[in-house]
This record gives sequence, structure tokens and C-alpha cells, in this order.
Amino acid sequence: VDNSLKAELDDVVCLPLDKGYLVLKADMLVASTDIPPAMGMRLAARKSIVMCVSDFAAKGVQPRWALTALGLPRPITKEAVEELAEGFRQGCEEYGVRLVGGDTNEAKELVIDVCMAGLSEHPPPRRRGARPGERVVVTGPFGYPPLGLKILLEGLQVRGPLRTRAVATVLEPRARLAVGLALAKRGLVTASIDSSDGLALSLYQLAEASGVSIVVTRLPFTEELESYTQRRGLPLEELVFFGGEEFELVFTCPEERVEEALEVVRRHGGSPYLIGHVVEGSGVYRQVGGERVRVERRGWQHLAGPR
Amino acid sequence: VDNSLKAELDDVVCLPLDKGYLVLKADMLVASTDIPPAMGMRLAARKSIVMCVSDFAAKGVQPRWALTALGLPRPITKEAVEELAEGFRQGCEEYGVRLVGGDTNEAKELVIDVCMAGLSEHPPPRRRGARPGERVVVTGPFGYPPLGLKILLEGLQVRGPLRTRAVATVLEPRARLAVGLALAKRGLVTASIDSSDGLALSLYQLAEASGVSIVVTRLPFTEELESYTQRRGLPLEELVFFGGEEFELVFTCPEERVEEALEVVRRHGGSPYLIGHVVEGSGVYRQVGGERVRVERRGWQHLAGPR
Repeated sequence: VDNSLKAELDDVVCLPLDKGYLVLKADMLVASTDIPPAMGMRLAARKSIVMCVSDFAAKGVQPRWALTALGLPRPITKEAVEELAEGFRQGCEEYGVRLVGGDTNEAKELVIDVCMAGLSEHPPPRRRGARPGERVVVTGPFGYPPLGLKILLEGLQVRGPLRTRAVATVLEPRARLAVGLALAKRGLVTASIDSSDGLALSLYQLAEASGVSIVVTRLPFTEELESYTQRRGLPLEELVFFGGEEFELVFTCPEERVEEALEVVRRHGGSPYLIGHVVEGSGVYRQVGGERVRVERRGWQHLAGPR
Repeated sequence: VDNSLKAELDDVVCLPLDKGYLVLKADMLVASTDIPPAMGMRLAARKSIVMCVSDFAAKGVQPRWALTALGLPRPITKEAVEELAEGFRQGCEEYGVRLVGGDTNEAKELVIDVCMAGLSEHPPPRRRGARPGERVVVTGPFGYPPLGLKILLEGLQVRGPLRTRAVATVLEPRARLAVGLALAKRGLVTASIDSSDGLALSLYQLAEASGVSIVVTRLPFTEELESYTQRRGLPLEELVFFGGEEFELVFTCPEERVEEALEVVRRHGGSPYLIGHVVEGSGVYRQVGGERVRVERRGWQHLAGPR
């Protein structure tokens, strides 16, 4: 799809008021591309809220109000509508958002559009603020959502806690709002983005918006995921870089404040990874031994698989 | 569709800020129900903007910012995407709205969701402010859009200026923003609603929100439409009351200010009709001779026809 319609060059839109800023975001979730079969109406509605909250989290802004607009296929049962309403309520309650309005329409498939608004005293961190010398941090490990999708969509056999965790990241994703708010409050973030398009693409978007290059020195994964992929011969790097539907934050911070940033992430429930640093130039590279290998600029195309 | 998802009980949502109010609206336009075949991408995109602006017009608030979220069916041509972008630009320019963001997704049919935000110093008029003794005014004649839909969808044969006007109200609707802003500025409106669900349903919604009854003493139609329907044996009252996709404003104002209100509507390009008055009680009635006949509580269900 042509990008001429993407006027938005950041996770949210930030508009100056007389005092402070109005922060807006609209996000659409479409059944055929965004909703795995195992995900019921309630979880789909909840996910639509989480997707939007995640963009606010990346900007360290508390979303205050949500409007939902629904396209509903016929015939739709009363139960399905109640499940949707329950999912919206649940998602909004988890993140302190007030559901203030809604609109329902008929459509050929389920479409959920969520629009959120929040207020910020200061301009929130943009994607474009990263400078050479700064560190790149993520708020948690990557790779679970793509594994979860393989389990749910391709019937990949995984057992035990790994299965539970991977599936949960797909069906009940969590936005890193507490972490994002705490980081912004302390002014620790110079540039930030959420990772719903996958780690590689998020890093590229940060680098491009900031006019810098990013060098990844460490991949953010757990031992659990590493030993599983080794046993099964699955490509760990592929899962970590090119998965999608991830909801961790990716941000840059000044070198001298990176320990503080890691500590803030930990204190608010995250599992931070210092994954690299910012250098002059362009593009995203992986440091492998003494060599820099270019990371492919590609992401995850929803349920259609990697693009 | 169950109304439990319609948290919104007014045309827009109005949220108190430290100073003034934030006014929000999200509106979804779906190809299969809202877009007649003759309407191309550009006009569909423009209409989605007009629909949202119309709700702001009813509340006398200037919409300042728009976000669009698109669901696009595959394959979609570059031309179609450019036409959509052009329609958004055109609609926003006509009404002084800044298009600040967008989001594109794949979907089985074209879905356009528009979210708009504006600011208001004072709380805008609600649907619930109508009081017995007040007058009911509309900003223009009704009946053209349903006639236009009959021409476009059922091949009804109509010629000359009537055809042109009826078709134009469907393909290029106009929101009564200038009128709505001027009325609100002068404090002439006690309750207000737009008429996208048709005149009868809009009157019912005003009456119900305000806990009053509305008596219609005069139907808002032009001589042109009257003589055409008489000649062709078409039901004029049906077209006027139960059409849909109308974009005139329906409002109440104090009796002593009704002449001023009519003048303000005229001065801003409208053709006002004083259609009735507010009394105690409930429901919407038509005054026919000495008798009051209940108006059916039904509206227009998009392209599916009357409901």
C-alpha cells in the first residue's frame, strides 16, 4: 500500500494546545489480517485497545479517552456483541483509559477501529531523537509472539510453560504503559517506538527518522527460547528480528543514563535488554565478531507471514 | 445491533480539559452499506470527512484535526489510493480541518474510519437541552438524498435540475458547519442533532434525550420536490421523514429568538424551516388539522433501505 496516506510519521500525533499537548492515535484491527482464529471476540476487542495503548506507552503518555468504531458482519449474535463490549471494558480498565464513545456499523468482516486521546505537559519523545553515542534498549525479550502464531496457525508442537507464554503473548498481549510512563517522566528517552511491526523494522524506523545508524550487539531473547530453538533447529534470529505483533518498547537513551533506564524498566515489570548503540550513518547492523552485517529491512505482515 | 456498545449518547463526545473542552468523534464508513456504486474513491473519502464534520456542525464546534484509518481490499490500485487521499484532502480543506494522521490496513472491503478532534471554550449544546415552548428548526429542506438514492440505486427516472440536485446530495453531501458555528456562537441553540439517520429518527432522538415531545406543524420540503412527487405519485412525507443520509441540522431554540435563528441560518447559506415546537410528554407527532398523528419511530438503514 502506497504510503501517501500515512501522514503520520510517528506512533502518535501530537498537537499543541494553549497549554500542553493533545496526543491522538487511531488504530484499526481487521479480522482477516489481525485476528487469529483462536482469538474470540472479547480478546480481539481487548487487543484493539492494547495496540493503541502501546503507541501511547512508547511516547510516555497516559491515554485518557477511547472511542471505538465497529464494523460487524451479519449475522452477529448478542453474545458476540457483549463479548466485544467486555473486551473493550477490560482493556480500558487495565490501562486506566475511559471508554467514552462508540459507533457500530455493518461490514463484511469484523473491523475494530480505536481512537485514543491523551494529554501531555511536554512534547513526548519522537522517533527522530536518537543521536550517535546513545544506547538502544528494549523493555523485554522478543520472539514469543511469532512462536505463538506458529503454534496457533501452523500447529507447531510446543509444550509446557514456553507454549503457555508464547500463546499468551498473541492472545493477551500487554502494552508496556507503566514502563513507558516512568521512562518519560525521568526524561530517559531520546527516541522511542513500539515494536508491533517487529524488532528489525522498528529499529529501521528509529534510525531513519533520526538520520542515524543502529548497531545491534546483543539480541533480546530468553534462555528458554534459545534452548528451544536450538533443540528444534528453528532460526532464533529470525524469530527475534522479524516476528511481529510484539509489544515491547524500543528506545534510545544517553550512555550515562543507561543504567538508570535499565533499572526503571525492571522496577516497572519489564525485562530490559541493552541491545546496541547509535552511530553515524544509516541502516541497522548486527555486530558479529569484528564484522557488521546488515539486518534485512523487513517486518511482519500480520497473519500473512513475514514480508 | 445491540446498543450496549453505543456508550455515546450524543453526536460527539465532550471532555473537560483544564480550560475548555475537548470534542471527539469517530465515524466509520463501510463500502457495502455506505457507498453507492456511483460514488468513486475520492467522493467516498470526502463523504467520510463530511459525515464527521456534520456531527461537529450540530454542536457548533470547529473540528480542528482529523485522523483516518483505512481498511483496503486487495488488489488496490495506486490510482484508488491517490483518489482516497485526494478526497480526504478535499473534505478537510472545505471545512478547515487539518489531516494529521492516518493508518492503512488490509480488509475484505473498503472501510474508512475518521476520527476528529476539536476544542470548545464552552460546553456545546447537547441533544438533551430541548424544553417545552421552544421551537424546532431545520437548516434546509429534506427528501433530496433518498430521491438521489432511488435514482442511483433503483434507476428512478428523474430529469433536469431536480435530478442534479438529488444526486449531488448523495454523492457530494455538504455539512452545515458555517451555520452550526454561527448559531452556537450566538447561543441560539438549546438542543441540536444532525440528521444522518433521517428527520423522524433525529426528532425522536432529540425528544427522548430531552424528555419532551415534539409536534411537527410543517414539513421541510421545497416546491420543486412537492410538485415532482405529486406528479409521480411518490410519497412526499415518506421521503422527508424517513430518508437518510441527510446532512441538515435539527435544533431547538427559545421562541423569542426563533426569528434571529432563521436569519442566522439564511445568512450562512441555509434554507431554514420552522417545523414545529416542543411540548411536554414524549414522542414525535405530526399536526394534521386539529389532530396529532404519531410519527413512526424509524429511520434509514443505509443502502439496505428503510428499517
